[in-house]
Amino acid sequence: MKVVIVGGVAAGPKAASKIIRLNPEADVTIVEKDKYLSYAGCGLPYYVSGEVKEQKELMCTPVGVVRDPVFFRKVKNVHVLTETEAMEIDRKGKRLRIKQLADHQEKWLDYDKLVLATGAHPIMPPLPGHDLENIFTLHGVHDAEAIKSLLAEDKARDVVIIGGGLIGVEITEALTHKGCRVTIVEKFPQIFRMLDWEIAKLVAQHMETKGVKIITDTEVKAFKGQGEVKEVVTDQGTLPADMVIMAVGVRPQIKLAQDAGLDIGEWKAIKVNAQMRTSDPDIYAAGDCVESIDRLTGKSCYMPMGSTANKHGRVAANNICGHEDSFPGVLGSTICKVFDFSVARTGLTESAAKEMGREVVTVMAPAPDKAHFMSNAKPLLLKLVVDKENRKLLGAQATGPGDADKRLDVVAMALMSGWTVDQLANADLCYAPPYAPAMDNIITAANVARNKLDGYMEGVTAREVHQMLAEKKEFIFLDVRSPAEYEEVRLPGSTLIPLGALRGRLKELPADTEIIAFCKISLRGYEAALILKAAGYQNVRVMDGGVVMWPYEKIK
Amino acid sequence: MKVVIVGGVAAGPKAASKIIRLNPEADVTIVEKDKYLSYAGCGLPYYVSGEVKEQKELMCTPVGVVRDPVFFRKVKNVHVLTETEAMEIDRKGKRLRIKQLADHQEKWLDYDKLVLATGAHPIMPPLPGHDLENIFTLHGVHDAEAIKSLLAEDKARDVVIIGGGLIGVEITEALTHKGCRVTIVEKFPQIFRMLDWEIAKLVAQHMETKGVKIITDTEVKAFKGQGEVKEVVTDQGTLPADMVIMAVGVRPQIKLAQDAGLDIGEWKAIKVNAQMRTSDPDIYAAGDCVESIDRLTGKSCYMPMGSTANKHGRVAANNICGHEDSFPGVLGSTICKVFDFSVARTGLTESAAKEMGREVVTVMAPAPDKAHFMSNAKPLLLKLVVDKENRKLLGAQATGPGDADKRLDVVAMALMSGWTVDQLANADLCYAPPYAPAMDNIITAANVARNKLDGYMEGVTAREVHQMLAEKKEFIFLDVRSPAEYEEVRLPGSTLIPLGALRGRLKELPADTEIIAFCKISLRGYEAALILKAAGYQNVRVMDGGVVMWPYEKIK
Repeated sequence: MKVVIVGGVAAGPKAASKIIRLNPEADVTIVEKDKYLSYAGCGLPYYVSGEVKEQKELMCTPVGVVRDPVFFRKVKNVHVLTETEAMEIDRKGKRLRIKQLADHQEKWLDYDKLVLATGAHPIMPPLPGHDLENIFTLHGVHDAEAIKSLLAEDKARDVVIIGGGLIGVEITEALTHKGCRVTIVEKFPQIFRMLDWEIAKLVAQHMETKGVKIITDTEVKAFKGQGEVKEVVTDQGTLPADMVIMAVGVRPQIKLAQDAGLDIGEWKAIKVNAQMRTSDPDIYAAGDCVESIDRLTGKSCYMPMGSTANKHGRVAANNICGHEDSFPGVLGSTICKVFDFSVARTGLTESAAKEMGREVVTVMAPAPDKAHFMSNAKPLLLKLVVDKENRKLLGAQATGPGDADKRLDVVAMALMSGWTVDQLANADLCYAPPYAPAMDNIITAANVARNKLDGYMEGVTAREVHQMLAEKKEFIFLDVRSPAEYEEVRLPGSTLIPLGALRGRLKELPADTEIIAFCKISLRGYEAALILKAAGYQNVRVMDGGVVMWPYEKIK
Repeated sequence: MKVVIVGGVAAGPKAASKIIRLNPEADVTIVEKDKYLSYAGCGLPYYVSGEVKEQKELMCTPVGVVRDPVFFRKVKNVHVLTETEAMEIDRKGKRLRIKQLADHQEKWLDYDKLVLATGAHPIMPPLPGHDLENIFTLHGVHDAEAIKSLLAEDKARDVVIIGGGLIGVEITEALTHKGCRVTIVEKFPQIFRMLDWEIAKLVAQHMETKGVKIITDTEVKAFKGQGEVKEVVTDQGTLPADMVIMAVGVRPQIKLAQDAGLDIGEWKAIKVNAQMRTSDPDIYAAGDCVESIDRLTGKSCYMPMGSTANKHGRVAANNICGHEDSFPGVLGSTICKVFDFSVARTGLTESAAKEMGREVVTVMAPAPDKAHFMSNAKPLLLKLVVDKENRKLLGAQATGPGDADKRLDVVAMALMSGWTVDQLANADLCYAPPYAPAMDNIITAANVARNKLDGYMEGVTAREVHQMLAEKKEFIFLDVRSPAEYEEVRLPGSTLIPLGALRGRLKELPADTEIIAFCKISLRGYEAALILKAAGYQNVRVMDGGVVMWPYEKIK
């Protein structure tokens, strides 16, 4: 069996290795345009920052063996043609035309099965001046090297990052560590559009404490400079820039597939079925060039991820070798390190769920991520989105210095099994003080959701409260923290009655005015609301997330 | 509604708080024998070590409010009677006889519903000399204070811990940090009987590198000393001891329930249904005094855990207040920090599964817990136990310095949903280099299980190989690592042929002798086995876990 694989970064080499393992007689060839093979693209920001010392490390196996063509030949019995471009698929003749970039020599490779793992390429909008020097994307090793050499020459003091998504933020952190003054320019009203607004805002605030400038609702119009870029012109003014990194997203590489007449999906990526087979039964596709299915909605989606690419490669290989296997789709599970914070998401955001017409209950649950008396405990800010109708989880988001990855992986597992918050609340997770609170953050969050669903707690978002304050609506914004906490930091328009004193000071609170109670994390706020309700107050709500998750100005 | 709750540590206060939240009119009283209330028992080892500075921290809410009787009264409207013992339940009269310890005054408390949250007490075998001074258990704050004052006086140089379970190991770490010479005496052939032998052995080796002495298969016969303990007499000899800590397990406190004629289960804990109701419909029980159901086997089990106690309390409260709720049982999810290692388990061990008659496939998957090129990546040693018949997960264990909690929580979620390894292998977990490898450890482990289940990989345990070496069986113990790795450390009886050279050196390997291939983690070992099989070798196996998980002597 002759298998030709186009693309040598993630899904391609994975498929090649697995095919050979299943079928040692197979004749497998990888065609890769670049000179580098099988490198960890997700590691590029860490190579720029210096966290990863040598380029080679991105191309090694975990035990330090470089995955170069010799390795693939000797260890895996896979042929690799680097610096070779796949030009054309002859589906009828079952052959692929390739061109060696060094000498422009062309030839045809026959295949029984073809795998397209052509990946994605970063979008470079054709703005005036976009071909000036020192305007980069961060896609391949070449880009990282170019950025590094500019840093080494100390020629990149002011850097403008266009786009506040994952790549934009990861490279922002890397460049800030390198001493650059970084400004992120984002077209939309928030960075991290994978998150709900208020979570993204908390992340943005953290980035600002690290000296990053974030400009939202701003569109880039042009680049200016003489040879090298010197300015970024936006609809809100001009920014100085010694270097610009375009991080406005990627586009699946589908030209080869499209020219061959293969089906392309609504996201302009290659359409595949669960077996990773394209519309041609002898052609498979995998990795960043294909669409996936959203496991929650059943709809097609485009979510390029290194983790997904590897799974795709294995599924394609199994099916090519005659072992039925299928890829069940994705949840959009995503995580990113942003200075001292983690930022993570899985499933649907509140806004995405509402756009789909779901009625949701949301929970903001900030708490220490370990037993609070342990010195390694760090705050973790968690948001759950729950379907009001069937009590099932729809998604979660997390940020803060605490362990977000663990909690979001647990939610991802719950989402894949269609769990309700009631099921999640009784999950038997590993507990000891150095790892989690006795009631894990995710279990507490699930219980808060249950309290809301059952009508014991009525929440109000910080956004709504902020709006009410702006509109000078009449309500009591009741802070039930201690006087010491109040002295340290407080929210505008708030009144302090510490929780312990509340029962004795009820007469200070008029019976007919709405009361919105809160505390640091709104657990005492919840207790206060219960006390007030028990005392006959009808109109009491709790502000979700408390002071910790208030995404606006605080009074210090 | 009058609710009386016996026990004020975890399940009791949880139930009390929840009842008041659901029914602010309820009259709730907690009866607690001790003077301390609602403290974090799991934090005691960290209070002994000094990680937790003040006793008070163990009794605070996460925002620093001490949960004392005044707090319960003012904030929660719950009456608390400390230093008060529950003496007798009059089920017919629905009342509880209590005794104030200060003045021995007795009285009856009426109840509509009674909650028994009497906890467990540590087992103290009545060995000769067990009442000598400086022999402790680690159960309450009193114990921790007594241990701490002995440490403060520098009177505990040699410490013997009896029992190598969770508490024994946690206090071992605390005392080692305090400069004590600690010896663990374990009656059984291994410490951590919640783990399979070889995983427990890897943990024991780590503890030994920290100066801890571990003596297994050894029974304590007596304690000797004059007033204060000075020696521990075992069936293997005598050990010096300035302090002894008994950590041989706990026993549920059931006297009150038993005297009242409530059903007691096979584990000698209070029998409850899923609603946490005892055999008396007006009496509930929760926490360390009750049996649970094992979610995997459906059998009753006794697994006292602070995390479970809190869930029990909530379920009991819901049912008491007329809201149907049920506790689904436990998996035995457990984690513990042991110096630089984590040790974790969820579900069944290999030995437990085999005892139950299941045919299993096991996987040893050691790998970095983050992208291997990140400086925060640490080794994580993972074991999966899979049902051979239906490919479902049965359990997992983990140790090493890497993030074990996250992976075991993911497995726990998979176990609760009855997942197969095929489902787990395609889980969409959060990926970025600072958090996980592109193929998460747990996904790689699931794929190794699939390879084994599908017959592509035949594994052999280190234990079996060690046995074969001892019996001088004829086989080639083929190390396929690099010469540099081989120089650094190697296994007895092994032959080196680096993987890259294997195809060219096949003639050195006789066709009719069994070959057992391995490498550092046995990924290259697997590649080698595939190469050998493709070359016609019939009798090839891969040693699970490689050099990293070899639990015997290595040659350095």
